[in-house]
Amino acid sequence: MMENDFLQSLERRFTPRPPVLTGIGDDGAVLEADSSRKIVVVTDMLLDGTHFRLAEVSPVLVGRKAIAVNLSDLAAMLAKPTAAFISLALPRDNSTNLQLLAEQLYQGLQELADQYDCVIAGGDTNSWEGPFAINVTLTGSPLGKQIPLRSGALPGDLLFVTGPLGGSLLHQRHLTFQPRLDAAQWLADNVPVSALMDISDGLATDLPRMMLASRTSAVLDMTRIPIHTDVPASLPHEQRLQAALNDGEDFELLLAVPAETASVLLSAPNHLHFHPIGSVQAGTGVRLKLANGELVQLPPGGWQHHLQ
Amino acid sequence: MMENDFLQSLERRFTPRPPVLTGIGDDGAVLEADSSRKIVVVTDMLLDGTHFRLAEVSPVLVGRKAIAVNLSDLAAMLAKPTAAFISLALPRDNSTNLQLLAEQLYQGLQELADQYDCVIAGGDTNSWEGPFAINVTLTGSPLGKQIPLRSGALPGDLLFVTGPLGGSLLHQRHLTFQPRLDAAQWLADNVPVSALMDISDGLATDLPRMMLASRTSAVLDMTRIPIHTDVPASLPHEQRLQAALNDGEDFELLLAVPAETASVLLSAPNHLHFHPIGSVQAGTGVRLKLANGELVQLPPGGWQHHLQ
Repeated sequence: MMENDFLQSLERRFTPRPPVLTGIGDDGAVLEADSSRKIVVVTDMLLDGTHFRLAEVSPVLVGRKAIAVNLSDLAAMLAKPTAAFISLALPRDNSTNLQLLAEQLYQGLQELADQYDCVIAGGDTNSWEGPFAINVTLTGSPLGKQIPLRSGALPGDLLFVTGPLGGSLLHQRHLTFQPRLDAAQWLADNVPVSALMDISDGLATDLPRMMLASRTSAVLDMTRIPIHTDVPASLPHEQRLQAALNDGEDFELLLAVPAETASVLLSAPNHLHFHPIGSVQAGTGVRLKLANGELVQLPPGGWQHHLQ
Repeated sequence: MMENDFLQSLERRFTPRPPVLTGIGDDGAVLEADSSRKIVVVTDMLLDGTHFRLAEVSPVLVGRKAIAVNLSDLAAMLAKPTAAFISLALPRDNSTNLQLLAEQLYQGLQELADQYDCVIAGGDTNSWEGPFAINVTLTGSPLGKQIPLRSGALPGDLLFVTGPLGGSLLHQRHLTFQPRLDAAQWLADNVPVSALMDISDGLATDLPRMMLASRTSAVLDMTRIPIHTDVPASLPHEQRLQAALNDGEDFELLLAVPAETASVLLSAPNHLHFHPIGSVQAGTGVRLKLANGELVQLPPGGWQHHLQ
């Protein structure tokens, strides 16, 4: 896809300057309101046919997802939401009751917004001849003093994920997942996080992004990748691992932390789950450590057809 | 259209609470960063076929418009931009070079952003089977101490617009207009503004919105409506007036100010133009004062076919 290259070109072109401290290239942007106060801003556009199929799912769940993916971005910046801004492009065709569609979307948006004390503060409602599209922008405020970026991983750090991966699209978890704001709050309070992002395109795509941003490499321990129960147990183990690495839409957090904090993470409260999956090293790229101990390079752009 | 009713229902449903001071229903939202610092957030979605025709205009101008309409919303809050967040849905069809389209859009976005010292700080770039859509969110900071809303007009206030109206779509002014941030800065410094909004749907639609929000009525002096040179001079005067009131996409500011400030506005610097167009009174609705002195009610939903 063009997206990676294009985003990198934007990142080079639009370097941040005050009051923007962190700009394009991370899960969110960081703005300085004044010397002691930072604001985090995230935005995500969801499109019918790409991120969901409106004909097949409840608009309530679509509204929910549109805000959930943004809450996940805030969690990845260790920030909590303050306000939400909703733009809708509603399809003006004969089969769609626009008023009902908008009501249902807002029901899903509001339920999750209320859960995280986020005020729906503005928006733009349109109808058109195209398919349904929704854009959500959230403002947020830091949960603690640290705002870890993708670029902060250091050699020697350990890598963790906040939950099992794979099968999200198959079982519609992508519509119902809980953004990891509880884990974010606990991390903000308890652990110095070197680097943090959420997993939206799959670990095999997102981990290399973190390593590239951090100018580090990673070793991913294939025996430790937590595989979600949404991945069919009947599949061969190899395929289940591929699903965990490549399916995407997991919206778990991926974090790099100093090795000495591992014991803190492993003794986190019971409702939080930090799974150790590997380590950060000097160099570039991501290597997979197979069950037999062999190290295999993860090719840029995915690992399918390359592992065996 | 459903939009008016639906927006009013959203406004009732999502009443602002801290840190949101002003929510749905105005040109932008106002958030309190701390007791002394406010942030303004505006968002607008522009759609191919509704707000422009991508096949007929340069993507550079489309990118420009997408940020310009948001800058106009900030001007209507007497705020200046700080950061911009851009979401794109690019059409994945055979005739579109996505990379080139994105480059041209960003060129238009950047030119206007740079002009107003606004940092492009984040975004979300997607492609899909649908037509082109773009959403822009801007954060802003107040130009002065006042953030006038639509709802602040008072009986006795005078009404002004910052420029002539009508013909914007005919002559593509809607793609090239200059957001009134210079007028906004001058107003912030020099005049206590009771109520302020930008004219996007036409004076005959937007003035009643301001009066409804302010629980006031207005008398609009039809001999004083400034008609833009984009409205063909060959048309009968009646039609030219209708164009000025109804065409929309003017992106001039509409303001209500205390009567005693009129002399200040009329002696503003030469590059600013404040046209007096009427007055605010107690009651509801908008009345048109015709050339012969007769007062005619402006029906809700427009005045065409009702004036004569």
